[in-house]
Amino acid sequence: MEKKIAIVGAGLSGSLLAIILAKKGYDVEVYERRPDMRKVEISAGRSINLALSDRGIKALKLADLDTDILKEAVPMFGRQIHLLGGSENFQSYSGREGEHINSVSRGGLNCQLMDKVEGLGIPIYFNQKCLGMDYKSSTLSFLNEETKEEYLIEVETAIATDGAGSAIRNDMQKKSASLRFSFSKAYLDHGYKELCIPPTEDGDFRMEKNALHIWPRGGYMLIALPNKDGSFTVTLFHPYDGENGLDALNTSSKARVFFEKQFPDALALMPSFDADWENNPTSSLATVKCYPWQVEGKSLLLGDSAHAIVPFYGQGMNCSFEDCVVFAEYLEKYKGDWEKIFSEYQKSRKKDTDAIATLAEDNFYEMRDHVSDENFMKKRKLETKMEQQFPEYYSKYSLVTFNADIPYSEAMRKGRAQDQLLLEICRETDDLDSLDLEKILQQIKSL
Amino acid sequence: MEKKIAIVGAGLSGSLLAIILAKKGYDVEVYERRPDMRKVEISAGRSINLALSDRGIKALKLADLDTDILKEAVPMFGRQIHLLGGSENFQSYSGREGEHINSVSRGGLNCQLMDKVEGLGIPIYFNQKCLGMDYKSSTLSFLNEETKEEYLIEVETAIATDGAGSAIRNDMQKKSASLRFSFSKAYLDHGYKELCIPPTEDGDFRMEKNALHIWPRGGYMLIALPNKDGSFTVTLFHPYDGENGLDALNTSSKARVFFEKQFPDALALMPSFDADWENNPTSSLATVKCYPWQVEGKSLLLGDSAHAIVPFYGQGMNCSFEDCVVFAEYLEKYKGDWEKIFSEYQKSRKKDTDAIATLAEDNFYEMRDHVSDENFMKKRKLETKMEQQFPEYYSKYSLVTFNADIPYSEAMRKGRAQDQLLLEICRETDDLDSLDLEKILQQIKSL
Repeated sequence: MEKKIAIVGAGLSGSLLAIILAKKGYDVEVYERRPDMRKVEISAGRSINLALSDRGIKALKLADLDTDILKEAVPMFGRQIHLLGGSENFQSYSGREGEHINSVSRGGLNCQLMDKVEGLGIPIYFNQKCLGMDYKSSTLSFLNEETKEEYLIEVETAIATDGAGSAIRNDMQKKSASLRFSFSKAYLDHGYKELCIPPTEDGDFRMEKNALHIWPRGGYMLIALPNKDGSFTVTLFHPYDGENGLDALNTSSKARVFFEKQFPDALALMPSFDADWENNPTSSLATVKCYPWQVEGKSLLLGDSAHAIVPFYGQGMNCSFEDCVVFAEYLEKYKGDWEKIFSEYQKSRKKDTDAIATLAEDNFYEMRDHVSDENFMKKRKLETKMEQQFPEYYSKYSLVTFNADIPYSEAMRKGRAQDQLLLEICRETDDLDSLDLEKILQQIKSL
Repeated sequence: MEKKIAIVGAGLSGSLLAIILAKKGYDVEVYERRPDMRKVEISAGRSINLALSDRGIKALKLADLDTDILKEAVPMFGRQIHLLGGSENFQSYSGREGEHINSVSRGGLNCQLMDKVEGLGIPIYFNQKCLGMDYKSSTLSFLNEETKEEYLIEVETAIATDGAGSAIRNDMQKKSASLRFSFSKAYLDHGYKELCIPPTEDGDFRMEKNALHIWPRGGYMLIALPNKDGSFTVTLFHPYDGENGLDALNTSSKARVFFEKQFPDALALMPSFDADWENNPTSSLATVKCYPWQVEGKSLLLGDSAHAIVPFYGQGMNCSFEDCVVFAEYLEKYKGDWEKIFSEYQKSRKKDTDAIATLAEDNFYEMRDHVSDENFMKKRKLETKMEQQFPEYYSKYSLVTFNADIPYSEAMRKGRAQDQLLLEICRETDDLDSLDLEKILQQIKSL
């Protein structure tokens, strides 16, 4: 029998990659550790919606899935900021017409992708736990979680899309001395807890539907993303330590006292607050980096297995989907030469996933501290004016989010330089209307 | 039976810590994965000598071992630089009388320490492989490598001095989500290979005895440290990749061609070059960082298990020994409250081990690139003059190496600022004698 390409992990990037490979005529099969999520309820209380934006959409286009998936999404045009005291303001994501991000259900999206995988005749084997790889014989070992049998399969090559806790990456780490496998996992001091704002009895949204809501409070924040059914998924990002930290708020009544002080408006919209607080897990946040991503053309880490990031730029999924786009380019370029494909792909891609990892950590501080800062708000206004007037101008946020043609590393470099300039300009003026935007554009271009 | 403090790992820092604890009246026992090195020959071709300096000596004093151990050492007063073409120059480590580092045998030192451990009535159990810890029951699990039996021991607390590949740290990593255990292991692109310059037939040294010899060649370097018996341990630090990289030099005849071009003078002193090249392993170099180091007062990582560094500052052992000094301070301060001792120790110590990790990586570039650079040599001369004239002045190297009273983080901050200033001064003058050293000292003090 012909050896196949094994994709380990039928999550978002694994499923998308399987579709892309199958469309190019490769013989693929998919192994997934968990049960089929289309038949079993899983992963409640953990990142149930995500912000899909241009990089992700570009990848979905490769699989002809963009239209179907955007149909199920809720557009978000900007940040709705909820200040302590109840006042609100709206910060547009872009000054250009139509640019927005999209709240999608992780589970729904994953199911759509898996349906498409199987529709193309690619098998997905569920409940198959990968145990590692033998590189000499190109053999993957698995445990069938239902029969408890261990078995081996010989593969053409293996692509590990098995997420932040990747089994193949863990196996590489065990062999780290011979592979010289560098690895880092860095936890934030903050964790998160998911809560819920349900729809009204009429099925309507209880807040502005087309926005990402933020309650910035300095050392911590609450956010809410809309779901298609009228509900919002609410997430508290909060330090573990301290008087009011996650460790101290170990009952819903303690949490309620804290929310009454800090988020009274949000609390009023959450009838199931106590049950959600008690039942939903408290989850940690970490950035994972490693290198190399490939071993001898026989295995490749792709997606979160290679670079798990914190969620604050809304780019985790988009970045992993973009991996597929970049990978597909090298696949075309070096057809069949896996060692070359994998090594050129990792060489070109690593700097970009490092950049988005840094941007995502930075954005945590921006979201919780700066979005309510006066000079920052002035800068956002100036950026929006610039984007309205000059279609070729992209703010840092727009470079990352709405410009899928520029690599993350370049978006970071350019965006940071722009930010510094614009913040300086804003500090020196009270009247944005008096500014010569044309001159600023020239300054930006010469950065 | 009273529960004991288990020290896991009878290497350099584990043995020293056992002595320090025993001297303070604690009930200690030591578990070691390897056989007793006093009875079995092990670890040939890997870091067989080390540079012992003031921080390490300060720690050995706590165990009353400094005099005995320095008796077995070869003092090194500076760097003997061997340029391509055969010319040599000597760079003193310090301008102060008597300041030097000491070449000691890793094996010999470890044996002396273990003798002392057992002399104090502390048992060392060899061939006991630690498998992990259960924190609820304070129980360590071991595999007896001789009988192949697994067993558990309940302990008062466990201190993991089991080195760069620490079993207890690996176990913490498996539990990383609940411990929020951040970890990084970063490999250099360079590896190393050990070689040997034997004594003359009369037992004499074939080169200057009291120096650390360096053959700097830009992207790579050769070094040699003297041993008591008249031999030198020679180490090539060299990239794995490239035309003449370690991977390409996979036979001694290829390596010989390379050495004939780059290190002809050293090659002429190595009669067993071919056999050493073929038989000694090629080893990789990595920096390991992690945090937290402790779990609930029940286990603590100390020494290389908490912070393995590259060898280029000669501080790996000295840093791990200094861990024992700092740990002993917190042991006194919070007697018996392990959680408090461990957490205050890690909080105070982490910044310093991070600093020496950075300095050690930096020094690789200094040693292979800069020691033969003209401005660098001028700066070394200026530093030496300053140290001769002002006993209170310490160069960066001296702050790290000869001033055990200043923490590594402070040595790095101060040393880097000084370096920058002195390099600028040297760039602007050709005549060091014309400089006003008193004025420079004042500039340095005001940094």
